[in-house]
Amino acid sequence: MTPEEMLDVAIAEAQKGLAEGGIPIGAALFTSDGVLLGSGHNRRVQNDDPSVHGETDAFRNAGRQRDYRSTVMVTTLSPCWYCSGLIRQFGIGAVVIGENRTFDGGQDWLAEYGVTVTLLDDPRCVTMMTEFIAANPALWNEDIGVSE
Amino acid sequence: MTPEEMLDVAIAEAQKGLAEGGIPIGAALFTSDGVLLGSGHNRRVQNDDPSVHGETDAFRNAGRQRDYRSTVMVTTLSPCWYCSGLIRQFGIGAVVIGENRTFDGGQDWLAEYGVTVTLLDDPRCVTMMTEFIAANPALWNEDIGVSE
Repeated sequence: MTPEEMLDVAIAEAQKGLAEGGIPIGAALFTSDGVLLGSGHNRRVQNDDPSVHGETDAFRNAGRQRDYRSTVMVTTLSPCWYCSGLIRQFGIGAVVIGENRTFDGGQDWLAEYGVTVTLLDDPRCVTMMTEFIAANPALWNEDIGVSE
Repeated sequence: MTPEEMLDVAIAEAQKGLAEGGIPIGAALFTSDGVLLGSGHNRRVQNDDPSVHGETDAFRNAGRQRDYRSTVMVTTLSPCWYCSGLIRQFGIGAVVIGENRTFDGGQDWLAEYGVTVTLLDDPRCVTMMTEFIAANPALWNEDIGVSE
């Protein structure tokens, strides 16, 4: 499975979140040979829960795993510090990122600590987040902890 | 409300978690003037959910807040990278830590980025985690992403 094919799964999750009225960020956790362990999307609006980012939801839906070193987290958007911390703490070996133009998170920090980072710069992800942020600036700022 | 009184709330959460058969780490989010916004505890075992650390549960139970700068996260144990990332991303202004003897997380990194860190070195927290880790080494390693 290519990084682009993994990203398609995360994009489908983001689109599902958007259709639910939520923030369109999706993620998925795969084994290194492409088996999907779990996927999910941001649930701040849907569940009224600030703790569930796209990566958190995918991580949760993958269930309890004993070793994350050979897993790949794919996410439509550059992981924020919360999600970068998740990746580092659990030793997830690789991250595939849809884009980092609309938000630039902790990917360099992760690379510094040995995580393999692949940045795809996918125009679908850029368009989805650009349009969402323009239409919902307050909600977006809430999701990344930016005060007015 | 003193940091010690805030810690008592987190310790009560950790004890609740232990009584449920879970990992005894508790946390609570307060306003700077001591109003409790939410408290919680690690739920890996109880909910079979790897994404819910003590701090995550407290953050979730505090509900959606528009500004975290004046809030205080109190936790029985030094926050791991996942929880340190949460604190940094959402701009939580201060952290009160029960102990960092049994696990040393991201408190120096948080201090570097402007978070006020108070380390209480509370013997109740040290004893609780020392006993738990000795009795459940595999579960503890799973919770912090340490492979066998």
